[in-house]
Amino acid sequence: MTSNWLDTLEREAAGLLPPDVYAWAAGGSGFEDALKRNRSAWSRITLRPDALVDVSRVDLSTTLLGERFDAPLAIAPSGYHGLTHPEAERATADGATKSGSLMVLSSRASLRLEEIGLPSGRWWFQSYVLKDRALTEQMVVRARALGARAVVLTVDAPVLAPRRQSRNSALVPQAVLEVNTGPVTDPEMLEPAPDLTERDIAGLHEISGLPVVVKGVLRGDTARRCVDAGAAAVWVSNHGGRQLDAAVSTADALGEVVDAVGADTEVYVDGGISTGVDALRALALGARGVFVGRPVVWGLAVNGATGVADVMNRYVEELVLAMRLCGRSQVSALGRDLLG
Amino acid sequence: MTSNWLDTLEREAAGLLPPDVYAWAAGGSGFEDALKRNRSAWSRITLRPDALVDVSRVDLSTTLLGERFDAPLAIAPSGYHGLTHPEAERATADGATKSGSLMVLSSRASLRLEEIGLPSGRWWFQSYVLKDRALTEQMVVRARALGARAVVLTVDAPVLAPRRQSRNSALVPQAVLEVNTGPVTDPEMLEPAPDLTERDIAGLHEISGLPVVVKGVLRGDTARRCVDAGAAAVWVSNHGGRQLDAAVSTADALGEVVDAVGADTEVYVDGGISTGVDALRALALGARGVFVGRPVVWGLAVNGATGVADVMNRYVEELVLAMRLCGRSQVSALGRDLLG
Amino acid sequence: MTSNWLDTLEREAAGLLPPDVYAWAAGGSGFEDALKRNRSAWSRITLRPDALVDVSRVDLSTTLLGERFDAPLAIAPSGYHGLTHPEAERATADGATKSGSLMVLSSRASLRLEEIGLPSGRWWFQSYVLKDRALTEQMVVRARALGARAVVLTVDAPVLAPRRQSRNSALVPQAVLEVNTGPVTDPEMLEPAPDLTERDIAGLHEISGLPVVVKGVLRGDTARRCVDAGAAAVWVSNHGGRQLDAAVSTADALGEVVDAVGADTEVYVDGGISTGVDALRALALGARGVFVGRPVVWGLAVNGATGVADVMNRYVEELVLAMRLCGRSQVSALGRDLLG
Amino acid sequence: MTSNWLDTLEREAAGLLPPDVYAWAAGGSGFEDALKRNRSAWSRITLRPDALVDVSRVDLSTTLLGERFDAPLAIAPSGYHGLTHPEAERATADGATKSGSLMVLSSRASLRLEEIGLPSGRWWFQSYVLKDRALTEQMVVRARALGARAVVLTVDAPVLAPRRQSRNSALVPQAVLEVNTGPVTDPEMLEPAPDLTERDIAGLHEISGLPVVVKGVLRGDTARRCVDAGAAAVWVSNHGGRQLDAAVSTADALGEVVDAVGADTEVYVDGGISTGVDALRALALGARGVFVGRPVVWGLAVNGATGVADVMNRYVEELVLAMRLCGRSQVSALGRDLLG
Repeated sequence: MTSNWLDTLEREAAGLLPPDVYAWAAGGSGFEDALKRNRSAWSRITLRPDALVDVSRVDLSTTLLGERFDAPLAIAPSGYHGLTHPEAERATADGATKSGSLMVLSSRASLRLEEIGLPSGRWWFQSYVLKDRALTEQMVVRARALGARAVVLTVDAPVLAPRRQSRNSALVPQAVLEVNTGPVTDPEMLEPAPDLTERDIAGLHEISGLPVVVKGVLRGDTARRCVDAGAAAVWVSNHGGRQLDAAVSTADALGEVVDAVGADTEVYVDGGISTGVDALRALALGARGVFVGRPVVWGLAVNGATGVADVMNRYVEELVLAMRLCGRSQVSALGRDLLG
Repeated sequence: MTSNWLDTLEREAAGLLPPDVYAWAAGGSGFEDALKRNRSAWSRITLRPDALVDVSRVDLSTTLLGERFDAPLAIAPSGYHGLTHPEAERATADGATKSGSLMVLSSRASLRLEEIGLPSGRWWFQSYVLKDRALTEQMVVRARALGARAVVLTVDAPVLAPRRQSRNSALVPQAVLEVNTGPVTDPEMLEPAPDLTERDIAGLHEISGLPVVVKGVLRGDTARRCVDAGAAAVWVSNHGGRQLDAAVSTADALGEVVDAVGADTEVYVDGGISTGVDALRALALGARGVFVGRPVVWGLAVNGATGVADVMNRYVEELVLAMRLCGRSQVSALGRDLLG
Repeated sequence: MTSNWLDTLEREAAGLLPPDVYAWAAGGSGFEDALKRNRSAWSRITLRPDALVDVSRVDLSTTLLGERFDAPLAIAPSGYHGLTHPEAERATADGATKSGSLMVLSSRASLRLEEIGLPSGRWWFQSYVLKDRALTEQMVVRARALGARAVVLTVDAPVLAPRRQSRNSALVPQAVLEVNTGPVTDPEMLEPAPDLTERDIAGLHEISGLPVVVKGVLRGDTARRCVDAGAAAVWVSNHGGRQLDAAVSTADALGEVVDAVGADTEVYVDGGISTGVDALRALALGARGVFVGRPVVWGLAVNGATGVADVMNRYVEELVLAMRLCGRSQVSALGRDLLG
Repeated sequence: MTSNWLDTLEREAAGLLPPDVYAWAAGGSGFEDALKRNRSAWSRITLRPDALVDVSRVDLSTTLLGERFDAPLAIAPSGYHGLTHPEAERATADGATKSGSLMVLSSRASLRLEEIGLPSGRWWFQSYVLKDRALTEQMVVRARALGARAVVLTVDAPVLAPRRQSRNSALVPQAVLEVNTGPVTDPEMLEPAPDLTERDIAGLHEISGLPVVVKGVLRGDTARRCVDAGAAAVWVSNHGGRQLDAAVSTADALGEVVDAVGADTEVYVDGGISTGVDALRALALGARGVFVGRPVVWGLAVNGATGVADVMNRYVEELVLAMRLCGRSQVSALGRDLLG
């Protein structure tokens, strides 16, 4: 079983991290059904490889919201990298640059945006709409000033579900929780607003001047509402199995969302992407960008910026191999005919 | 696995109860296939959560046969609570009141109806039609006098199937078996009448002056016959997996029954509801009330009235969370579009 | 698990019988997939019980080829009962009489037909067409003289497949192999004729003057050919998983055969019937008779004639219970609406 | 489980071979999902046996590209038999002759073609198109001179996927790698050409003067392109689970390929054929030839030429038995009606 590098890497990270940090990063909500379902749903999709196609040169390059990238694989947002590595998001951003990957920075960062050394034009900023909307506002304005090219609005967390290790507060000191918001008098103001609606999409776009990507969509009708409300792109996600434990897998939801809005809107996906072959499956279903979360954290834990870059490069190598074996030399040639 | 509180509670109850009482309460008939199938059928239903809906205020309130309740979760009938707790049905009724839940009292109670302290207008009375129909008659009349708002007629037990621990008589003294019927000369007269037909529905309604809920329906055509014969509501149940071991799960039967009679008749369900998410699945399929049986018994065993209330409150909390994560703030907004 | 009496009985028989006899009786061919599939296919069929039907009196009586029996459960043929019990087929026939069951006597009996004490009019004679057709001829003529009411022609053994314990010859002395044929010069003459065709059906009918039941049919078109060639009834069987290991289960084949010929021809079934509920499933699919093989052998091993009768009575009790729980009081009322 | 001879044989071979040789021969790529899926896909197909058909004489004979063979079972190409047995391909060719089987010789042989003693007219030559096309050219010309009747062009290996034991070079000395190409200055020239397209089919045909069989096809449209480009036959294969690990099983792909081109083109299949019943399944789906790879290697390891012949004869015996039990006496009578 030569390609099982990811499980090996996770075990290595689990050995290096404090147990509660590992549990917090690895865990899902409830029975962790959604967590497991994400991964099993991809692996259940068999492929119908074509042959006798010239694959001597494989070109993975694509554009995401108009910016060119060498590959459609990108880094999903995840919180508080300071728990995982002393260099925190600086290392992640450095790894993203090394591997040429788009990085989506979580607004739950361990460092002030200004300290991270983000690569202007090559990153997006993940944001909640917080109960105190002014806190959100100042962050997206700063993100834009630092070269963020999009705001990724997380919409599947109007409340937070209990998780295997759910008490961030025990892991993250208040000063870090407030590092990008500034001190707050009422900690509740840092929580996602449960009255978030699609009207916030236009609001966030107006404030930031940036395209808004809506992350956490699992239905075609929700996607359509997002696009009608001004979303620049839609991101199929179930929060890595950390919110509704009964949620459909992202592999199962992706096709419906692509069918609903994919003709004129970019659709992304994350959740359980554990090999380059999974990325190919997602692209064949119609995803334009495929995002990787936990594996990046394991790379960060094990080897900092280099570990992050290694993970992203590994996915790219696997995707190149998978495309050659499927008889496809360009991302745009991947379609549902490949799915068994 | 943060939400597995129910299995923990059951283990705690199993440690406190005499083994034969635990086996009697926990067990099913035959190979216990129906028992297991009930639970697995709910958990197989994935959900398609919506997003960007204001869920800052979630309202679970509903009416059951015209009476308003804070939530659509209620207590299913189960026999002889005196085996489980010294306070017997008094504790259960107290727990129902504490949690605001509708309680369905089993006619197989350990206490005389008059001793239980039932909350007038907030409980229903479960009844068989016994071989000696006069015994049934006097009980429903007394139940009505004590404020029962409906008679729940169990129809899936024309005979009793063998169970893991099937000899009630070894557990329950004859005096208790007769506590609500008065002494009988022939114990067979306490048995359910195998010649029960839909004509008994109208008969029971006439005698009691109460709406009759028919419990133990698993088919659309049976439901339609019940309604045509005067049933006020239909309850999808396979007797908690204690009768026909080959019976379909209630999750699989519910949709058909709702389609047959749900437009103008309330449909309830029980069987394997082990989280608030299961309750949401049932409501989305069209159930108006969702009933919980064994978990209430475990709560009763572990902590009496408080334990009962804790169980019901736990379900309600989970249901509120699940609704928020599905983007639904009212029970009436739950529909089949949520089911994957 | 109160109804798992059959597995207990089989274990008891396994402890009493010589290991090679047990293996020979219990085993199937190849990987024993067909053997396992037979049983699992029945248990996968869930039931949709009806309710509110008067089931105070359940009548299982039916006719099989015009003869009335108390129940549609009957004894399938199996070979050489002398290996299992000293009384051999005498005990089996006695058990059949005690329980009122139709018995199909195997032509591979340990005793001469004339020694068995068969109940005239209440038994059928299973026969192959042997390579030496004259041997077959004399046996069916004798069977008729002893009161056999039908010949059951086994057609799924044009050759014998290797089994877990395949060397009958090591178990059965030549004298016993020849007990009903008389001594043969060439043992190959005892083998089934591989050139058997539907023309043998009419031939056998003519020779014996008895209706011919064709056993070992798994397809609708085969069944139709049998009926067109003069078969009085068709028996869905895969030889208890002892011939083609890849064969469909009898539960899966039954419906198709009933659809093809059931309107005017009786259809029987065997294979993996391990509870009275399985019998109900088969009857609901359209079988008129349900045959039990190995369980009868276990009963015979453990308790002779009484053991055989106990097994048959147990199935009948379970079937009565299952019918009551399904709301059906007559065999003719069982239909596919009961199948989930 | 009498027919599990193949697993026994593989275990015996595993005990005789050096561990890295065994791993190299047995292994697949990635998680070995395709390897396992090939086998499980055949065994999932149940059969619908017919009966009452004269099967006293079963004739397996068929033609493959116009040449008559006693059975449709043949030897798939596999590399470097010198790792498995001191007589290398000489033993394999001898075993093929003994059993009357068509042999496809791998171009990755341990011996020079001229040393193998190939049976003129009864073998085909497997070839890649190497990066240095001249090397391919001289080999197919020599193969033709030695009596090869077809060139089998492998098209599912434009690059090689990592395997359980992937470093041939550690197992096979450079001199052996070059035994049929002659010494090369650049070892990369021995690699399959990633720019292989259907135009190479006609090229190979022209150079060799032999019909070209395209091996490694898993889709109907690919098969159609092959035939349109001049292929004489199409071989459904996923390289024994050694290339794209996510690939569909050959059992699942076969029907589609037959539907696309089978009316006027021979279709072959390999991958997971582990009993004669699997061969029947493949033939019933429309394959004209069924190829066996690893089992031949195990036979070779355990008993040289005799071992190879034993394996092929065993498959034939099982196929004859399966046909008798299905009521089919000729290969041409096998059709999809037999598939459950």
